[in-house]
Amino acid sequence: MILVNGQAENSIPASDRGLAYGDGVFRTMVMRRGCPQHWLQHFAKLSRDCSALGIRCPDAELLAGDVAAVGKHDPDCVLKIIITRGQGQRGYAPPASVHPLRVVMTAPLPDYPEHHATTGIKARICSMRLGWQPLLAGVKHLNRLENVLARMEWSDPEIAEGILLDAGGNVICGTMSNLFIVERGALITPDLARCGVAGVTRERLIQSAAAHGLNCLVDAIDQERLMRSDEVLLVNSIIGVWQIASLGDRNWMPGMLVQHARKWLADETA
Amino acid sequence: MILVNGQAENSIPASDRGLAYGDGVFRTMVMRRGCPQHWLQHFAKLSRDCSALGIRCPDAELLAGDVAAVGKHDPDCVLKIIITRGQGQRGYAPPASVHPLRVVMTAPLPDYPEHHATTGIKARICSMRLGWQPLLAGVKHLNRLENVLARMEWSDPEIAEGILLDAGGNVICGTMSNLFIVERGALITPDLARCGVAGVTRERLIQSAAAHGLNCLVDAIDQERLMRSDEVLLVNSIIGVWQIASLGDRNWMPGMLVQHARKWLADETA
Repeated sequence: MILVNGQAENSIPASDRGLAYGDGVFRTMVMRRGCPQHWLQHFAKLSRDCSALGIRCPDAELLAGDVAAVGKHDPDCVLKIIITRGQGQRGYAPPASVHPLRVVMTAPLPDYPEHHATTGIKARICSMRLGWQPLLAGVKHLNRLENVLARMEWSDPEIAEGILLDAGGNVICGTMSNLFIVERGALITPDLARCGVAGVTRERLIQSAAAHGLNCLVDAIDQERLMRSDEVLLVNSIIGVWQIASLGDRNWMPGMLVQHARKWLADETA
Repeated sequence: MILVNGQAENSIPASDRGLAYGDGVFRTMVMRRGCPQHWLQHFAKLSRDCSALGIRCPDAELLAGDVAAVGKHDPDCVLKIIITRGQGQRGYAPPASVHPLRVVMTAPLPDYPEHHATTGIKARICSMRLGWQPLLAGVKHLNRLENVLARMEWSDPEIAEGILLDAGGNVICGTMSNLFIVERGALITPDLARCGVAGVTRERLIQSAAAHGLNCLVDAIDQERLMRSDEVLLVNSIIGVWQIASLGDRNWMPGMLVQHARKWLADETA
């Protein structure tokens, strides 16, 4: 089901700046029994991301109304919300008066193989390097060609995720996930000040680790450090937590921290 | 007038990857008496840009048919063509079978003040710095948030264009234009291997300068070199050639090369 500005519609105006320039932001989350999981965090992030681009974020009540409406229709689904700056005339300058567009849409919950969440996944290192743009780093905006190009590098269905490095060779994230490594029991995640998306599940894992007495360090991770680490965790709102079992010629056994992380995030959900 | 896949429509599917990821490319050109100016160069560039993203470019005849149809309706206008990868399911991987979307739309010809093309324009240096992404550099893709953020830096209507530097402090282009400087009669334009859009009018000016015995050098230009130059020219398919008359506390008198450039491009049009 798709709602465009609250109306059941399958289309958006061709003159919307979301199409013209990727001038907008989005969120993806799980809906269960008509309830979007971790809605408050997702709405807060959506609101911060709109601010980063100078887009007026729709009211929480308005958006919650849309979400409730699609939740009645598709109670268990992946929920995606897109907010764009709205329609514009030709040219990069936003019009003096502009009305943000909101799209609320559902998709089937993905059916990942069970071993992804038990023994772990096979990953690869992508050759596409993330460029540095501090003004957009962290924001889940609609300019996602880097992710698309990286994801197009492989078609082997056995490979569940690609790891992205930045222009300086730092490990940053997966094509659709945030990344953590474990070193001697410590949790470390890359700094996202120059590129990457600071996702809600990344934030939730940092917070719930701290609540369990484990502080997460934000630090530079190069490929060698990644390969030496005791566990590599990939997280997002749809997959939850996956451990990497195989990357190039390195293999990892199921670890302890991935199990803790899964439990912490699940407890918090309840 | 708007044609979407050849049909008179004002909307595109909400699930198009052009909206979701900016997964597409575009062109903007002038239409006169129903004829798009420099169509062959524009189509060639559109086709190259599609290739850069692995998008199947629509056939020239198909697109020319759309353009002829809107040209009957709006014979003198700005013509914009958007090609996206097409509709997709959730996720960055393009579907195995995907049909590119083509949008052909018109807008009124802009009504710039006459002095823009005689005494020149007032410009500013933007503080937004272009990030480096060699895989996307040169391509006129739909990921244009950097241009949007740069254009949002000023609202003074006296300022007609903002100059963009890259992460290394090199002068690259304007928010909507390519840039040339003149030094002792020589024409120099920035290298676009790491960022910026390699526009059709830039290419035409380089070629017509060469045809008139003036080779254009592609070279690094820093702010100091820009300020020391004898003329600064901004070009695109809509504005043609503007000279910068004022930038910060530097002023330029109308130069010789801007007049030649205008004449060369006009002769070629005829």
